[in-house]
Amino acid sequence: MPKLTIDLEPVGRRTEIESGATLLEAAQAAGVELLATCGGQGACFDCRVRLARGQAEPPTLEEQAALTPAELAAGQRLACQCIPTSHVKVDIPPESLSTPQRLSIEGQMVDVEVDPILLPLDLTISPPLMTDLRPDSTRLLAAVNQAGTHLSRRLLVDLSERLRRYNWQVRLALRGSEIVAVLPHQTPLLGLAVDIGTTKVAAYLVDLANGATLAKSGAMNPQIGYGEDVISRIHYANTHADGRRILQTKIVETLNSLITELTIQARVSVDSVVEAVIVGNTAMHHLLAGLPVEQLGASPYVPAAGEPLEFPAAEIGLKISPGGYIYLPPNIAGYVGADHVAMAIAADVHTTSQKVLALDIGTNTEISLAVDGKLYSCSCASGPAFEGAHIRDGMRAAPGAIEKVSLGETIKIATIDHRPAVGICGSGILDAIGELVKVGALDKRGNLRPEHPLVRVREGKREFVLAPAAESGHGQDVLLSRSDINEIQLAKGAIRAGEEVLLAEAGIKAEDLDEFIVAGAFGTYLDLASAMRVGMFPTLPLEKFRQIGNAAGAGARQMLISRKKRLEALQFSQHSRYVELTLHRQFMASFTEGMMLG
Amino acid sequence: MPKLTIDLEPVGRRTEIESGATLLEAAQAAGVELLATCGGQGACFDCRVRLARGQAEPPTLEEQAALTPAELAAGQRLACQCIPTSHVKVDIPPESLSTPQRLSIEGQMVDVEVDPILLPLDLTISPPLMTDLRPDSTRLLAAVNQAGTHLSRRLLVDLSERLRRYNWQVRLALRGSEIVAVLPHQTPLLGLAVDIGTTKVAAYLVDLANGATLAKSGAMNPQIGYGEDVISRIHYANTHADGRRILQTKIVETLNSLITELTIQARVSVDSVVEAVIVGNTAMHHLLAGLPVEQLGASPYVPAAGEPLEFPAAEIGLKISPGGYIYLPPNIAGYVGADHVAMAIAADVHTTSQKVLALDIGTNTEISLAVDGKLYSCSCASGPAFEGAHIRDGMRAAPGAIEKVSLGETIKIATIDHRPAVGICGSGILDAIGELVKVGALDKRGNLRPEHPLVRVREGKREFVLAPAAESGHGQDVLLSRSDINEIQLAKGAIRAGEEVLLAEAGIKAEDLDEFIVAGAFGTYLDLASAMRVGMFPTLPLEKFRQIGNAAGAGARQMLISRKKRLEALQFSQHSRYVELTLHRQFMASFTEGMMLG
Repeated sequence: MPKLTIDLEPVGRRTEIESGATLLEAAQAAGVELLATCGGQGACFDCRVRLARGQAEPPTLEEQAALTPAELAAGQRLACQCIPTSHVKVDIPPESLSTPQRLSIEGQMVDVEVDPILLPLDLTISPPLMTDLRPDSTRLLAAVNQAGTHLSRRLLVDLSERLRRYNWQVRLALRGSEIVAVLPHQTPLLGLAVDIGTTKVAAYLVDLANGATLAKSGAMNPQIGYGEDVISRIHYANTHADGRRILQTKIVETLNSLITELTIQARVSVDSVVEAVIVGNTAMHHLLAGLPVEQLGASPYVPAAGEPLEFPAAEIGLKISPGGYIYLPPNIAGYVGADHVAMAIAADVHTTSQKVLALDIGTNTEISLAVDGKLYSCSCASGPAFEGAHIRDGMRAAPGAIEKVSLGETIKIATIDHRPAVGICGSGILDAIGELVKVGALDKRGNLRPEHPLVRVREGKREFVLAPAAESGHGQDVLLSRSDINEIQLAKGAIRAGEEVLLAEAGIKAEDLDEFIVAGAFGTYLDLASAMRVGMFPTLPLEKFRQIGNAAGAGARQMLISRKKRLEALQFSQHSRYVELTLHRQFMASFTEGMMLG
Repeated sequence: MPKLTIDLEPVGRRTEIESGATLLEAAQAAGVELLATCGGQGACFDCRVRLARGQAEPPTLEEQAALTPAELAAGQRLACQCIPTSHVKVDIPPESLSTPQRLSIEGQMVDVEVDPILLPLDLTISPPLMTDLRPDSTRLLAAVNQAGTHLSRRLLVDLSERLRRYNWQVRLALRGSEIVAVLPHQTPLLGLAVDIGTTKVAAYLVDLANGATLAKSGAMNPQIGYGEDVISRIHYANTHADGRRILQTKIVETLNSLITELTIQARVSVDSVVEAVIVGNTAMHHLLAGLPVEQLGASPYVPAAGEPLEFPAAEIGLKISPGGYIYLPPNIAGYVGADHVAMAIAADVHTTSQKVLALDIGTNTEISLAVDGKLYSCSCASGPAFEGAHIRDGMRAAPGAIEKVSLGETIKIATIDHRPAVGICGSGILDAIGELVKVGALDKRGNLRPEHPLVRVREGKREFVLAPAAESGHGQDVLLSRSDINEIQLAKGAIRAGEEVLLAEAGIKAEDLDEFIVAGAFGTYLDLASAMRVGMFPTLPLEKFRQIGNAAGAGARQMLISRKKRLEALQFSQHSRYVELTLHRQFMASFTEGMMLG
C-alpha cells in the first residue's frame, strides 16, 4: 500500500500513514492528542478538523450528521471518519485537542456571557417617492427610531447604494448609538480577534452572537524583516524616514491577508466583520496604531497611550467592514502591554479572590500578581535565549529541534517532527539544564562538572553533547556550552527575580500562591518540572500550575463579545500597580539569587 | 508721468493711474466704491485693503497707527495713504466696500454672540520620571482633570513628540469633551469657513475667540474641468471609474491651497486651524464628503445625507490641524443644500417673525419663505442663462461684458472694466429686457415689435443691437435675439413660479412680504428695478429688498464661532417644508404666467 504524508497544523507535526487509515489514526501516530470520546466511532463529534489541502474520501453518513453542509463545504471533517487519498494538510482546531491546559482557555470562551458591543437590527425602510423626498440617511434614522442614533460619513459613502441594492431591507450593526454597518437582512455580525506577537500573529474570526470561533489562522509578523525584537524595531522606526509608517503598513497588510483567509475559510463576507479587537505588547500596539515609539525606546520608557483606544479600522487601512472599529485594550506600561492585560482577563487574574501569579514568557516576560484583590505587575528583560538566540545550537521550535531531554541510563531526546536533531529549542534547553542539575553534572552556579561522564572537555571547554555528529541531521554535534547555560541563567534569573519582587511587594511567599499561571507558546510547551528544577519557577505542587496557551488571543476574543470583559480590562489596567524592577531595592539580590540553578 | 496699472480684486476691475496717486483714487477712477468716511485723510481707517502683488511707498504714520505690525507685514494698507510704485493687485475686503447691501451681511459677523464649539485650555503637565511612569496620554488627561475628556488616535500619533517639544506647556483645543489639538501655550484657535460654489470657492480664516476674519481668499472650483454645472459633474462622477474620488480630490486640493494661502496671509500655523465649516449645494457637499451622487442625478433626486455631518478633516485629506474636524451643515433636499441653509441663517430668515422671502439665484435657484414662524423651501431649475449660457452674445461677468443697460434718447451701456463691449452678462441682459419692455419695444409675450425703432429686422429675424460692430471690442454686433429673450423668460419664469408657489403654500400674497432678500453674486449685482420690470420679482417697494452678497460664506463663518447658529441651521433644515415644484398643482400655471414680461 502506498504511504501518504499528513501535515498536522498548527501543531506542525508531519507523519506518514498507510493509505486507508483515518486522520485520527494519523494524529495518534504523530503523537497529537485529538479528542475522541467515543473511541473513533463517529458518535461524539469531538474530533472535528479541517482539510486545508489535499483530497479524501467523501464524507461518511456520520460526518453528514455531525456537520452542516456549509461546514462540509468549508472542508470540515471528523478525523475518525475521514480517510485521506492524497498528501493532505489538516487544521486541528484547539477545541479538538485533548491537551487540557490548552483547552482550559479555549473552553473559557463559552463561559463568557455574550454581551457584545454590537447588536443587530433588521429593518425594512420605505423607499423614496415623489411624495417622500427625505434624504437616504434621514429615512434610515427614522426607521431606527431611537433618539441619538447616528452614522458616520464613512457609512454614508455607500449607504445610498446599499439601501437600493438590498431593496431597502437591511440589517444594521449598532455599536451603541452608532450605526457601523448596513448589511443584507439577517447577516450574522462577526468580529476579528488578533494577537500580534513580536514573532507570530494569530487571528480568529468570531460570531458576535454566540462567541463561536468560525475560523482561525496565523502568520509570521512581517516586521521581523526590520528587526527581530522589539528594541530593534523601535530603533528602526526612530532612525528611518517613514520607518513608523513602514512597520505599520507591513503589519496591516499581514492582518488584511489573514482577514481574507479567515473570511474565505468561513465563507462569509468581509463586510460582516464589524469589529476588531487587537492585542499586542506596547510596542506592537503603538506600531499598529501609528503611535510614536521614541519615548518607548529611551528611559523612562513610557507608552504614548495607556487608555483603551477605539478608532475606525479604515483609519489605518484595516479591511474589515467599512464602518467597523478597532478596539485596542489598555496598556499598563512601556513593557506591560495590552496582550498581557488580555491574558490576565482571559485567565481571570483580575477577579480572583485567591493568590494568583500569571506570567507570559518571551523576550520580555510580563508578570501579574493578584493577592487579596490587589494587583501588581512588572516586566523582566528575559531576552531571546528561550527562542534559541545567543545559544550555540539554539533554534526556534521547528522540525529537527530537540524539544524534550531526559537523562537516565542514556540521553533521551525528542525532536520536533521526529527529524534528526539539528538544534535545540527553548523547552529542550530547559529540560537539558534541569536534567544536568538532577544527575549532578551541573552545579548551582552553572558550572559543568568535568569529572561527570556526561560532560565532555574539548580544547579546555566543557560541553554537554545532546546529539553527536553521527546522529545529528547536519553531521555536527548538537551541544550545550558553558556560555549557553549562562544565557539561560540570565534569562531565567530575570524571570525569577520578577516573581520574587512582586511576591515581596505583596508581602507573601511563593508557597502562599494558590495558582501559578503560565501563558504563551513557550510557557505551554515547557516542562514544569524542568522549570522548577532550574529555579525559573518556585517549587510548588504541580497541580498549582496552569499552562494556558495563547491566552492573549482568548482574551481578545472575549473582549469581542463581552462589554463586561472590556470594562474589566480597563479596571485591571487602572488598578494594577506597575513595579519598575530596575528601581526596586530587592531586584539585584533576587536576580543574583535567581541565576542559581536549583 | 508714467501710468501704473491697478487690479482691484475680487471685484475684478482694472484701471490706470498716474504715478503718485493713491489706491483710493485708483478705486474711485475705476468706479469701485471704497468706504472713506474721513474723506481720504487717513483718519477713519475704513479703507483697509491688502496689497496682494506689486510695490508701494512705505506705510505712512497714519497707516502705522491704524494697522498692527503683523497686519502691515501681511500687506495690509489704508487705500487713501498707499501710493503704488509698480503695477499692483489690491484685495479689497468686503468691509471696505461701501455697497451697503454687501456690508449688511459682513457686518452681521460681529452681531453673532461668540459661543464657539472649540475652547482653549492652557496646561502645564508634569513630565515622566522613573517614579512617575504614567503613559503620556494618561498624564495629559490627568492634567485636564475633567471626567469624560478623551482624545483620538490621530492626536496620539504625535502627542508624545508635541508634549516634549512644547516642554510640557501646552494649549489644548477642546471640542466638547474631545481634545482635538495640542498646541503651544496661548496659541489662538482658528477656524476655516468655506463656501464651495459650483463655479467659485470662497474661503475665510476666522479667529474663534472673537469671530474676526483674519484672511480671505477665493479660487475657481477645479471641478469645472469635469463639467461646468452640477448635472454634468454628477454625470461625470457616475460614469467614470473613480470619478467621484477624482472630483473629491480636486476640490480638496484647491481647499488645501487656499488654506496655505490664508495661513501665510495671516502668518499663523496651519496647526492652529482646528475646525472647518464648509457649505455648498447638495452636490458640492456630497462630492466633497465622498458621498454618492447617483441618486442625486435621477428622479426623485434625494440626497444621500440630510443631517449635519461632522468628521475628521484628515479623513478626506483636508490639511488643517491633524485632529481637526469638518462640520457640514444640513441639506434640505437634493437641490436645496447646506449653502442655502447657511444663507438663510446669516440673513436670519429662520428666526424672523416677519414675512420674509429669501432666494439665491444660480443655475438652480433656491428659495425659502418664512411666514409666521413657518418655513417653506423649493428649488427652481432656472438654468445658466444669467451666467450667459445659451445666450447668443452671453458671457460671464468678465471685462468687456455689458453689465448695465438703459434706454432713453440713446442706448447707454456700461461694460465691466469700461472695455469695448464683447458680450453681455446676466445683469446686462436683465436690464436690456427690462428697458425694452419699458420703452415698448418688447411685448409681454417676449416678441420684439418690428415697428419699434430699436428693433432691427434682418433676414426675417428681429434683434436688439446693444453695441454695433463698429463700437464693439471684437468688430461684431453685440445683440439680443428672440431666442435669447426666450431663454431669459424660461429662467425668470421658473424663479417667479417658485416664489408664487411658496407664497401660495403659505397662503399670502407677494405684497404681504415684509422683506425680499436676494443673495449670491448675480443677485447682488442685478438691478432690482429691471428684475421687477421683467417680472422675475414681484413689484414691491425698493426698500423691502435686501441684496446680501455671499451670505452662504457669512453663514459658514457664523457657524464656526456659534454653537447656537449650528443648532439654528439644524432646526431650519428640519422645520423647512420642502415643496417639490414639479408636483405642485399650481406650478404650471405660475410658470406660464411667470414667463410673461412685466
